[in-house]
Amino acid sequence: MVRWEPGGQGRLAQAAMELYGERGFDQTTVAEIAERAGLTERTFFRHFSDKREVLFFGAQALQDLLVNTVVDAPASAAPIDAVTLALEAAGNLFNERRAFSVQRQHIIDGSAELQERELIKLSSLAAALASALRRRGVAESTAGLTGEVAIAIFKISFERWVSSAEPRDLTQLMRDSLEQLRVVTATQ
Amino acid sequence: MVRWEPGGQGRLAQAAMELYGERGFDQTTVAEIAERAGLTERTFFRHFSDKREVLFFGAQALQDLLVNTVVDAPASAAPIDAVTLALEAAGNLFNERRAFSVQRQHIIDGSAELQERELIKLSSLAAALASALRRRGVAESTAGLTGEVAIAIFKISFERWVSSAEPRDLTQLMRDSLEQLRVVTATQ
Repeated sequence: MVRWEPGGQGRLAQAAMELYGERGFDQTTVAEIAERAGLTERTFFRHFSDKREVLFFGAQALQDLLVNTVVDAPASAAPIDAVTLALEAAGNLFNERRAFSVQRQHIIDGSAELQERELIKLSSLAAALASALRRRGVAESTAGLTGEVAIAIFKISFERWVSSAEPRDLTQLMRDSLEQLRVVTATQ
Repeated sequence: MVRWEPGGQGRLAQAAMELYGERGFDQTTVAEIAERAGLTERTFFRHFSDKREVLFFGAQALQDLLVNTVVDAPASAAPIDAVTLALEAAGNLFNERRAFSVQRQHIIDGSAELQERELIKLSSLAAALASALRRRGVAESTAGLTGEVAIAIFKISFERWVSSAEPRDLTQLMRDSLEQLRVVTATQ
């Protein structure tokens, strides 16, 4: 999800990711990040609001991608099909940056504060998907449930994708999870 | 979920809930809670680790109820049936204390910190359900997905239940949400 600008921003981000990986997120200061990048703290704060933002920089772009894909889905698409298109678009983006995602997950797993932030982000994505579905005329209760379930599928699939030893296709893992959901919830 | 001990604990909890409702959670101090209850701060900290715990006191009991119900479900119960039993047990408990739940939700909606705490609690419940399913011999991937989906159903149903003007049956709302999930994810 991250497209660093060339120059200062990219160097700062790379320095931050290195330090978070080496020392842990909580133990790294902005001063240390700036020093490793050969830049000033002031320059860091021109690019990022705080040291957490290096890890959540792409969150708004991800949300926009999900929302726009749902809004632009064919009028004939059922709610679950509209969110599936959105998840696939996100999956294709993540597939291109698996190394960054794996590194980022390792850092997040080491910090309770970052894990909380990640949960909040996922909850916001569920709400944004629900809101996008309502804009398509989907009833309130269906929209809310579909948004939550889409994010449950995303979360489970992302965990599998990022913890897999071999690179896998996140989009395919999400399709598999939706199919698994149908099997799990099937009435006997 | 909350069974206050008679005496000090119950008086402190009631005083806290009143003040959180009147002034907001963030604007209330432990000193004010103790004063309203006619007790000392020291007594407050004998019963609660901090002012947040008044609102999350029942979280462990809820988790235990969910986990134990899944573990004790008939051996023949499919994963989704085992978690449905657990959700129904939780629903019956919440139904008995709707007034407290409504009051609590109002307080939580007014504080970003409490909303984050609630998300973390829900995420822990999903993980605990998945773990309980694995203890039943359910495969890792099915257990994780079923735990997440169960909590998505709980979250959506709870929001409907707590925001409804008329008292409704939370257990029935969760059954309805599961059925709605089946309809939403049905292949065309």
